[in-house]
Amino acid sequence: MLSQPKVAIIMGSDSDYQVLEKCIKTLNEFGVETTVLVSSAHRSPEKTAQFAKEAEEKGYEVIIAAAGKAAHLPGVIAAYTALPVIGLPIQSSTLDGLDSLLSIVQMPAGVPVATVAINGSENAALLAIQILGVKYPEFRKKMHLYKEKMKDLVEEKNLRLQEKLNGI
Amino acid sequence: MLSQPKVAIIMGSDSDYQVLEKCIKTLNEFGVETTVLVSSAHRSPEKTAQFAKEAEEKGYEVIIAAAGKAAHLPGVIAAYTALPVIGLPIQSSTLDGLDSLLSIVQMPAGVPVATVAINGSENAALLAIQILGVKYPEFRKKMHLYKEKMKDLVEEKNLRLQEKLNGI
Amino acid sequence: MLSQPKVAIIMGSDSDYQVLEKCIKTLNEFGVETTVLVSSAHRSPEKTAQFAKEAEEKGYEVIIAAAGKAAHLPGVIAAYTALPVIGLPIQSSTLDGLDSLLSIVQMPAGVPVATVAINGSENAALLAIQILGVKYPEFRKKMHLYKEKMKDLVEEKNLRLQEKLNGI
Amino acid sequence: MLSQPKVAIIMGSDSDYQVLEKCIKTLNEFGVETTVLVSSAHRSPEKTAQFAKEAEEKGYEVIIAAAGKAAHLPGVIAAYTALPVIGLPIQSSTLDGLDSLLSIVQMPAGVPVATVAINGSENAALLAIQILGVKYPEFRKKMHLYKEKMKDLVEEKNLRLQEKLNGI
Amino acid sequence: MLSQPKVAIIMGSDSDYQVLEKCIKTLNEFGVETTVLVSSAHRSPEKTAQFAKEAEEKGYEVIIAAAGKAAHLPGVIAAYTALPVIGLPIQSSTLDGLDSLLSIVQMPAGVPVATVAINGSENAALLAIQILGVKYPEFRKKMHLYKEKMKDLVEEKNLRLQEKLNGI
Amino acid sequence: MLSQPKVAIIMGSDSDYQVLEKCIKTLNEFGVETTVLVSSAHRSPEKTAQFAKEAEEKGYEVIIAAAGKAAHLPGVIAAYTALPVIGLPIQSSTLDGLDSLLSIVQMPAGVPVATVAINGSENAALLAIQILGVKYPEFRKKMHLYKEKMKDLVEEKNLRLQEKLNGI
Amino acid sequence: MLSQPKVAIIMGSDSDYQVLEKCIKTLNEFGVETTVLVSSAHRSPEKTAQFAKEAEEKGYEVIIAAAGKAAHLPGVIAAYTALPVIGLPIQSSTLDGLDSLLSIVQMPAGVPVATVAINGSENAALLAIQILGVKYPEFRKKMHLYKEKMKDLVEEKNLRLQEKLNGI
Amino acid sequence: MLSQPKVAIIMGSDSDYQVLEKCIKTLNEFGVETTVLVSSAHRSPEKTAQFAKEAEEKGYEVIIAAAGKAAHLPGVIAAYTALPVIGLPIQSSTLDGLDSLLSIVQMPAGVPVATVAINGSENAALLAIQILGVKYPEFRKKMHLYKEKMKDLVEEKNLRLQEKLNGI
Repeated sequence: MLSQPKVAIIMGSDSDYQVLEKCIKTLNEFGVETTVLVSSAHRSPEKTAQFAKEAEEKGYEVIIAAAGKAAHLPGVIAAYTALPVIGLPIQSSTLDGLDSLLSIVQMPAGVPVATVAINGSENAALLAIQILGVKYPEFRKKMHLYKEKMKDLVEEKNLRLQEKLNGI
Repeated sequence: MLSQPKVAIIMGSDSDYQVLEKCIKTLNEFGVETTVLVSSAHRSPEKTAQFAKEAEEKGYEVIIAAAGKAAHLPGVIAAYTALPVIGLPIQSSTLDGLDSLLSIVQMPAGVPVATVAINGSENAALLAIQILGVKYPEFRKKMHLYKEKMKDLVEEKNLRLQEKLNGI
Repeated sequence: MLSQPKVAIIMGSDSDYQVLEKCIKTLNEFGVETTVLVSSAHRSPEKTAQFAKEAEEKGYEVIIAAAGKAAHLPGVIAAYTALPVIGLPIQSSTLDGLDSLLSIVQMPAGVPVATVAINGSENAALLAIQILGVKYPEFRKKMHLYKEKMKDLVEEKNLRLQEKLNGI
Repeated sequence: MLSQPKVAIIMGSDSDYQVLEKCIKTLNEFGVETTVLVSSAHRSPEKTAQFAKEAEEKGYEVIIAAAGKAAHLPGVIAAYTALPVIGLPIQSSTLDGLDSLLSIVQMPAGVPVATVAINGSENAALLAIQILGVKYPEFRKKMHLYKEKMKDLVEEKNLRLQEKLNGI
Repeated sequence: MLSQPKVAIIMGSDSDYQVLEKCIKTLNEFGVETTVLVSSAHRSPEKTAQFAKEAEEKGYEVIIAAAGKAAHLPGVIAAYTALPVIGLPIQSSTLDGLDSLLSIVQMPAGVPVATVAINGSENAALLAIQILGVKYPEFRKKMHLYKEKMKDLVEEKNLRLQEKLNGI
Repeated sequence: MLSQPKVAIIMGSDSDYQVLEKCIKTLNEFGVETTVLVSSAHRSPEKTAQFAKEAEEKGYEVIIAAAGKAAHLPGVIAAYTALPVIGLPIQSSTLDGLDSLLSIVQMPAGVPVATVAINGSENAALLAIQILGVKYPEFRKKMHLYKEKMKDLVEEKNLRLQEKLNGI
Repeated sequence: MLSQPKVAIIMGSDSDYQVLEKCIKTLNEFGVETTVLVSSAHRSPEKTAQFAKEAEEKGYEVIIAAAGKAAHLPGVIAAYTALPVIGLPIQSSTLDGLDSLLSIVQMPAGVPVATVAINGSENAALLAIQILGVKYPEFRKKMHLYKEKMKDLVEEKNLRLQEKLNGI
Repeated sequence: MLSQPKVAIIMGSDSDYQVLEKCIKTLNEFGVETTVLVSSAHRSPEKTAQFAKEAEEKGYEVIIAAAGKAAHLPGVIAAYTALPVIGLPIQSSTLDGLDSLLSIVQMPAGVPVATVAINGSENAALLAIQILGVKYPEFRKKMHLYKEKMKDLVEEKNLRLQEKLNGI
């Protein structure tokens, strides 16, 4: 394996970074090279458009875009690229993220955004890995292992709960 | 008065035209020159950005942008221009326009969109006229007349209702 | 420039002041003269109506009205004036501001209110400035500068994030 | 009893009349004198304020105000009168009346509106009658009879259903 | 005046008392005699029904019923009495009181509940007083005074704000 | 088997009958004896309470209560009986049944209602049968058969779709 | 009585345990034997399916399944068993549990889930007991006693409130 | 290129077929081999699980799962496979598809579903193609062409509108 596949993570505001940490960490753990970028659909539209237009030739294979409120970033990125774009709605200070979710998921015909749950940071990473797994067998394999580990973790938690309950 | 002030009306899809008719008609009745354009934030992003960037130098003074679902058009236009942008949320086939409304009104700090009611086509026009009225006294005057006519119309409707009720 | 353009800011309750601070500060930074007023659509309706009726002749060019819950203030002001009225929905203690938003934005045909995001205090100011920019070239110019500064700020934040990420 | 108690019914738009018909009919059946009026909080604010201010001295004892969308009429009336005001939210063309309901019921402290269900035309009338019943024993009596008749009607419907089901 | 008019305040749970305090205080300040009762539509249905059936002959003139979640108390009371029933939706631990509001306000035809805002404790009291004002001129008078005091209070708050702003 | 288990179906209004037909039919197909009743929590509260109090000794084992809008019927029934009560929210003319759903499902601690989907008529019957299956082995058996038939039906539909798609 | 009836409580995540404590405690107080299990519809689907398929033969009579967000656990369990399944929606970190509620209650025809309120932990237990009461007379009896105790508790709380109010 | 990449389309009910037609047609136009299947998460859970477990070895590269109401199908599929799963929420007969959307998009951490708009049938196909484009250059190329055609189509519609407007 000469080079890792590359995923770009773009956020509309650096205040979204806290939510994105789990996403970045998960991609790193899977051995995905990530570029993390702050660029706003509204405050720096040209840079955002430029980034999206060049993403493919720069070698990115999936883009994760996170934004809150009237969250246009994922849709605007998707407008400019043929790469799959994952939209991560950030919980907003009012309306609990419903605005972010609807602004991202309800894209009109022609330009889809692969939307995950509000603040679903880890799932944005996992979806990127599943998409990479279509091309790279090692990511498919790692995803299988991840799913096994999840099962084990659930069972572990279950056992701890049994101990706790029996201990009472 | 050599030339009329110019308002640009941009819609994300030609299916929005039906809703916009009242807006265009109202602007025409007030003597505002309008340019009507179909351009999508998602399907033709470069043309949309281009339009927004040039709008000021082309002499437009207000922009009305209408869109439905994940309605990014008004916000994307507002990102590229210093002109006031009026956002008109179009009722969508699902969720009754709540998605359109939130996608337009909940803009993050720095880039406002002056949002009117879902399918509030006439009000988008009237808001444009009130904004023009800040600069052009004749539009302020026309707005006063319009408000007087509204009052008279309400009174007329009231009288017709009285006749109807007494006629029973 | 002999006198500054004047914007009136009216709030339904002095408890809304905290949210409005950013609005007032932003207008001041742009050099807009502001009058700030507490007057309720429900608790002091005559004063509110009086204010709205006289606003034009007192030289105000834009009115910003902030209110929460069944937020009638912007609409009531708009009923009495031909000036553009910006409505700022205040997040309420229940329902997260959805009531405020709908009470302000869903105005019936004839009387528009230019609505910004829930608690979108800064955007209310910026929208006022964009409207003033239609008439006053210096505000248009300042708005362009503001937009440039925003871009720089996004880039700064981006750079800080890059440093942070590389530092890990 | 020389004269009937008087209830004023005010609607923001004559398009609300269809919904109000049941309200008017119910009040008539109970022998309440009604005045029906079209006057808008936004399109004819002075007339509306005038009406509300004079309602008490004109002898009205309860006011029913119906409006849709950003439904300010009941609240605006309540601002100007010490009479009890019943608010009837009209189902709007978008958002299914949720906007009308929240705009009417979520009144801030100091100025209550007695809100009934969306399109709850008959209940607006019945609530007016219950309020009049506090003062006029004959309306209390009629209300008791009405409630008895309702019970009988439910039982009748039940019997018809039994017949239908047994007939199968 | 030998005896005060009587208002019964019934709450579904003693945990609602905190919200109701302002309601009780307001009624006391207006000189209304209040009876406060804990009785649940679901946990003590017979007592609740009994209370509602006897309320009229016990001399109550208005009933205020407060409840949260699937808030049936006001509707159940209204089912058993011809008195006007004011429903006060209590903010619930989930869904922010939307469930309480809809469970109270959306009453089917025949049995209205006069609904006030979520947690609108003071307004429940004021509505009761406005209803009593239909019968008792002194409550009408007190309500007028109350409205005057509200206006003065708004103006006071306005003046304090002016001082604060000028002091900066 | 001397006698069938008995399920009572109670609806708040005979207009709910149309939705309930599938429920009644399903119970009949499973061989459950049903009593169908129109009785309202609000319009005939005493009869409703009476019915609920006597339901157990009359031999009913499960009660299905259907209602719309501020749908109190299931909760009121549950208040008066120790039998399991299934709540069926009826889609209302406004708000699409959200009011019915929340009024039924959000019951406070102490008095549960087993809620099914809005207009989920067939599921109300199936849930009753699953509950009866706890006691009566033949209903458990029938439920197993029903589930098998469902699977076959899905497979049949799948095959028909394959034929349709291949036929193109 | 040789053995107690058995209820299985399954939760999608051990973080749901805190909400479920009241449910477990209530079942214990009624003398119901409970098995508590952590197993996820998504993270350990085979174990969950296995559990559901074997639940009947293992002697469980009712299953309580708790889950949050896109809460599939109760529906997935119900797909694999003919036992009655009670769904307990857990309040989620965003959207306040509305997602959990709709994901559980809106089950399509054929596979009902008996849904209780968001975080309605105690009610999940009580509903299980009411269902067991269909078969086991002692649980019916206990349920009657529980309802009596609830009434007494409401009355106690009422008395304490009276004392508190009189003490002022 | 010996064989086409394969996408599986699975729907919970054959009534969803009408919405899915555009999805199937789009995939066909791009030259993607599709398998279309009716299998329910609730009515045929084993077959659904079986399908999901075998999908990878059967050579599918992306799965599109469509479902309405408490729409568990996409999440249940995703639980059993490491392939990327696209969730298509179907507009339901009540609640307008909000239930379907939340049930699909709000997946808990560990098991993402790539959600598109309610009834966003065409976008589900396009997202699948973008994902395939990560691996297959010809799909990336086709996607670029598609995006070009979209732009042209918008421009065409724009021209037709200009003609229409000038023709008036």
